[in-house]
Amino acid sequence: MNKAEVLAKVLPDVTDVVASAEHFAPSNIALCKYWGKRDAELNLPINPSLSISLRDLGTHTKVTPLDQPVDRVILNGHEMHPETKFAQRISRFIDLFRRDSAIGFLVETRNNIPTQAGLASSASGFAALTLALNDSFGFNLSKEALSMIARMGSGSASRSIYQGFVEWHMGHREDGLDSHAHPIDIQWPGLAVGLIKIDVGEKSIDSRSGMQRTIETSHLYNSWPAQANADLAKLHEALNTHNFELLASTAEHNAMSMHATFASSWPPLVYWLPDSLAAMHKVWQLRQQGLALYFTMDAGPNLKLLFEKSSLNDVVSHFPEMELVLPFGE
Amino acid sequence: MNKAEVLAKVLPDVTDVVASAEHFAPSNIALCKYWGKRDAELNLPINPSLSISLRDLGTHTKVTPLDQPVDRVILNGHEMHPETKFAQRISRFIDLFRRDSAIGFLVETRNNIPTQAGLASSASGFAALTLALNDSFGFNLSKEALSMIARMGSGSASRSIYQGFVEWHMGHREDGLDSHAHPIDIQWPGLAVGLIKIDVGEKSIDSRSGMQRTIETSHLYNSWPAQANADLAKLHEALNTHNFELLASTAEHNAMSMHATFASSWPPLVYWLPDSLAAMHKVWQLRQQGLALYFTMDAGPNLKLLFEKSSLNDVVSHFPEMELVLPFGE
Repeated sequence: MNKAEVLAKVLPDVTDVVASAEHFAPSNIALCKYWGKRDAELNLPINPSLSISLRDLGTHTKVTPLDQPVDRVILNGHEMHPETKFAQRISRFIDLFRRDSAIGFLVETRNNIPTQAGLASSASGFAALTLALNDSFGFNLSKEALSMIARMGSGSASRSIYQGFVEWHMGHREDGLDSHAHPIDIQWPGLAVGLIKIDVGEKSIDSRSGMQRTIETSHLYNSWPAQANADLAKLHEALNTHNFELLASTAEHNAMSMHATFASSWPPLVYWLPDSLAAMHKVWQLRQQGLALYFTMDAGPNLKLLFEKSSLNDVVSHFPEMELVLPFGE
Repeated sequence: MNKAEVLAKVLPDVTDVVASAEHFAPSNIALCKYWGKRDAELNLPINPSLSISLRDLGTHTKVTPLDQPVDRVILNGHEMHPETKFAQRISRFIDLFRRDSAIGFLVETRNNIPTQAGLASSASGFAALTLALNDSFGFNLSKEALSMIARMGSGSASRSIYQGFVEWHMGHREDGLDSHAHPIDIQWPGLAVGLIKIDVGEKSIDSRSGMQRTIETSHLYNSWPAQANADLAKLHEALNTHNFELLASTAEHNAMSMHATFASSWPPLVYWLPDSLAAMHKVWQLRQQGLALYFTMDAGPNLKLLFEKSSLNDVVSHFPEMELVLPFGE
């Protein structure tokens, strides 16, 4: 089943007015990772995932209908050539909304994620674009439907529709209508995230190809879905009992295990750089000394520290270069 | 079942003469790793393994009966205090041979493994000690029995009884009598090993504890035995067809997967240091440039490069600090 066929099930038949619209969506950091697809066309995952959205850090996107049938994409103030992969990916996503209408769009999108923080922008980007297009076409879709549609742009975008803790239900339907995220109604004002930039150059291998290689060549990946499900249960327990150590240790174990599936692929996929490893060993050493400090990592060399606000001074003294994010505000 | 009960099945009833004896045993590098025990007392493995012995590099051990009921252990010229873990482990192993007799031994053992090459000495050490004690007691045990006994000192010692390529059959008996190594009758004079020392200090966690933690906490470990069996089949194919790329890539994939099971343990077990990772990335980069260079690693930070003699000059130019070993001689 392709994306357009799925959209046909949820979009209203008629497009009346098309107006300009703008929206913000937050970036998110997964505590239980999305790793592996059961359907590559629709981005249907092999396991459920759970994340924390990064409040003010994310993507702001404005869409404006044009008097021409082609799109223009402006990223962080720079117009992208229509032939770039980035512009094409956005145009193909807009196709899902405009269907047979020949309307073009000016898409102005801006990431306020600190340049060089090593955070993925595709999650917040596709979430913001989905929200803006929904308004532009006046579709009034539910949050669940928007999450489901954003997912087809980039899997983790399904979670960036919401703030706070968010769970993405993997779903079981072939058309993926039940594979969308929902917010978890738990506040945790003491939770802090610290971004540690190791390297922000182009990845040597993008996550999509990495995922493919891992599934095809890592024997150990066979045990990943069971771990993800077990970790998800632990995260729920941690959220319900407000147990920081359980939350953060589960997140770190989950991230380490995802990286372990990379490392056991062939050829090996090791996103860690020597400086990543130095920072990881530093975290483990500080923890042995009693500091409640953990980290998670995505398919790249950068670390995202997890700690409680009460440890902030200690953490900053050891990682002065860290960029602080408070997902639930000051 | 304990070790003494197993030994009772294979040793002659009577000990007639006890003489001094000496033996050498080579160190070995596993291409398919021994990782996980189904019986910790007897060192019975969860998977079969395959190694290459390092010819002249290993341990030379001389045992001399004493007129006193206590042992003296001299390692590399230094007498070890009887209370040290090292001396105790040797005395307990000798107990298996001397049984009720109160005879003590002077054990002089010397590793000619280049100090600081980061090679385990317990494999060659227990193999040499087993061979020497067999002569000393005049037991005339078969190589298979000696391999089986050496295994109870240190699992990988079962393979150090032989030179060349060696396979350790995991066996299925509860008493482990069928869990011993045998030599593979294949010569590969062009094969070269390069030892890259990253760090030779005490490991933060010994392999025995690391193994325990991995089995208990790594979800991904569940998929390890299947991989080891698949890798063993590939190694046999590589040996039979003299296919270096298949041999070395399988060895690297196997080692990376073992390290992946470490990394996915809790707390994470990462033996790699930043400099290990730098050397690994260098190997991968050289390979992308066309050099047939691979590596394997054990539970530590050091690399063992695998290549063919024909690439020696290239490899040396990139790793001038490498210590060369030719398992089949010049």
